[in-house]
Amino acid sequence: MTGSLVSDESIRAARARITPHVVRTPMIESIGLSELLGAKVYCKAEMFQRTGSFKVRGAFNKALSLSESARHRGLITLSAGNHAMAVAHVGAHLGVPVTVCMPAGAVQFKVDAVRSMGATLELVDGNLVEHAMRRVEELGATLIHPFDHPAVIAGHASLGTEIIEDLPNVDTIIVPVGGGGLISGVAIGAKTLKPGVRIVGVEPDGADVVSQSRLAGQLVTQPRPKSLADGLTAPMTGQLLLDHIDALVDEVVVIAEESILPAWRELVSIGKFAGEPAAAAGIAAIRAGAVTLDPGETVCLVLSGGNADFAKLGE
Amino acid sequence: MTGSLVSDESIRAARARITPHVVRTPMIESIGLSELLGAKVYCKAEMFQRTGSFKVRGAFNKALSLSESARHRGLITLSAGNHAMAVAHVGAHLGVPVTVCMPAGAVQFKVDAVRSMGATLELVDGNLVEHAMRRVEELGATLIHPFDHPAVIAGHASLGTEIIEDLPNVDTIIVPVGGGGLISGVAIGAKTLKPGVRIVGVEPDGADVVSQSRLAGQLVTQPRPKSLADGLTAPMTGQLLLDHIDALVDEVVVIAEESILPAWRELVSIGKFAGEPAAAAGIAAIRAGAVTLDPGETVCLVLSGGNADFAKLGE
Repeated sequence: MTGSLVSDESIRAARARITPHVVRTPMIESIGLSELLGAKVYCKAEMFQRTGSFKVRGAFNKALSLSESARHRGLITLSAGNHAMAVAHVGAHLGVPVTVCMPAGAVQFKVDAVRSMGATLELVDGNLVEHAMRRVEELGATLIHPFDHPAVIAGHASLGTEIIEDLPNVDTIIVPVGGGGLISGVAIGAKTLKPGVRIVGVEPDGADVVSQSRLAGQLVTQPRPKSLADGLTAPMTGQLLLDHIDALVDEVVVIAEESILPAWRELVSIGKFAGEPAAAAGIAAIRAGAVTLDPGETVCLVLSGGNADFAKLGE
Repeated sequence: MTGSLVSDESIRAARARITPHVVRTPMIESIGLSELLGAKVYCKAEMFQRTGSFKVRGAFNKALSLSESARHRGLITLSAGNHAMAVAHVGAHLGVPVTVCMPAGAVQFKVDAVRSMGATLELVDGNLVEHAMRRVEELGATLIHPFDHPAVIAGHASLGTEIIEDLPNVDTIIVPVGGGGLISGVAIGAKTLKPGVRIVGVEPDGADVVSQSRLAGQLVTQPRPKSLADGLTAPMTGQLLLDHIDALVDEVVVIAEESILPAWRELVSIGKFAGEPAAAAGIAAIRAGAVTLDPGETVCLVLSGGNADFAKLGE
C-alpha cells in the first residue's frame, strides 16, 4: 500500500466511529442469481442500510471526524440522490444543521426525502459544483464530498471489511462504479484482510468517468453523464480515487446502457432484491460476458442501494 | 396442545429432514418499515427460499416422509403457483417424477418455471380438484397437498422455529393467510418455543376462506377467490388447519383488497423487499388499523415469497 492510500489505521478508526450509527447489512446467498450467473452468488444488501444505500458509511465517518465546533457550524453537500439523503440523515441524527444542494432535475422522491429529514434544500438550476462551493464559503459549513475524500473512502471501507468477515472464501467482489468512492473503499477494506481477492468495477457507458480518466491518463469530466443507473452518474472522479483503483482494483469494465434494464429486472424478479438499477451493474456485466466467472467461483455482488422508482420496471 | 395438533416430535423430525434441502432464510431488520409502521419491524425473508417461497418447507417434509418406493412412484399436486413450483423443485431435487396440475389461467412465468424444472404439466380447464384426484388414482402417485396435511404443517413449522431462534424477543408475528397451512405451521413452531408470542393472520376480503369458515363454524369453500395477492387465493381450508388456528392463533383479520397494492408498493419501495403482494398483507393490516402495535413492540412480518410480476407495481 503506497502512502497516498487510506491507512489501515484510518479504516479501523472509521469502523469504530460509525459502527453505532450504521447497519451491518446482511450477506445473502442468492439461489436464483447463482443459477442465472453460473457461480456461487452472494449479495451484500446495502438497500437495508440507513437511507437505503451505502452512502451513510462515508458520510458518518467524515462528520464524526470533525471537531465538535466544526460539526456544529453545519454540514453541506451536493448530490442528486443517495448521498444527499445520507448527509441529511447524518445531520438529523447528530443534531447539526445540513444544507443540501441538489440539481433542479433531481428525482422527486429523493428531494422529498431530503426535505423530510429537516435539511435545508437548495435546488440549483445552473452549475451545481460552483453553487455548492460558494455556499461552503458563505455558511462556514463543512463539505461532505460525495466520494473524493479519504474519510469517505475509509467509511466505505467498512463494507469491504464486512464482506471478507462474512464471506471469507469470496473469490471475486463486483462493485458498481460512479465517482469511484465505493469501489475505493470496498477494495481497500477487503484487500487489507484478503490481498488475493479479485475486485471488479462496473461502469455504464453513459457514465464512465473513471474509465475515461484512466484511459486519458488524467482526470476528465463528463458534464452530462446519463444512465438508468442514476446512482452512477458522477460527472467526475478524483486523483485519490484513481490511486486506489490503480493500486487495488483488478479491472473496471464498461457495460452498455441497454443492458441495465434487463439486468435490473433480473435482480428483482430472479434475485428477489429490491435494488436500484445501479445495484444491477454486476449482473449486466456478467450477462454481457464483460466479467467471466468459473462455475465453482464464489462471487459477492455489492448491491449499492435500493432507492428507485420501481414502477419503471414495467417500462 | 391437543391431540389433533402436530406434535413436537413431528416438528423436530421435519426440521431434521428438510434442513439439508432448504435455505435458512435471513431475518432482516427493516429501518424503513419500522419508521412507517411505528414499531421494531423485522422481516423473515422467504423470497430467498428455494423456488422463491416458503412452500418447499412443507413439500420437502411430505416427500421425504414417504417410503423410498412410494416416493419413486411419483408425486402429484395441484396449485396455481408457489406450491406447484415447490413440488416441481422437490421432485427434480430428489430425482422422482412429478405431475403438476395447474389451472389453465395460471400466471405464465409460474407455468414456465414448473415446466423448466422437468415436471409433467397438466393445464386444467375444468374442476382442478376433481382432475387432480382422478390423476392420483390413475398414476398411483402421492398427493402433496398445498396445505391440508400434517406433514406440510410440520414442514412449515420450521419457519416458526427459526423466527423464535433468530428473534427471541419477538412480541408479534404477522402471517399472510391463504388456505391456512403457513400460519398453522408458523404458529405451532413458534408457540412451542415461546407460548406467549402473539400470532396474527391476515386475509384479503376477496379470499378469506379461513375467516368465512370460522364464522360459519364449518368448512366453507370459495369457488372463485380473487386477489392481487394471488398466493392467498385458496378456494378452501381444512379442519386440521382450523384446529391449529383456533388453538394457537390470536386473531385473523381481514383486509380490503384495495389496500394490497399500496402496501405492496411500500414493501418494495420503503422496505426494500422484492416480495410478492401476499407478503405485503401484514403491512396492509397495520396501515388499516386492523392490527395495532405498541411503539416498543418487536414485530416479525412473515414475507411469504417473492414470485410476482413486478411490472404491476406501476399499474
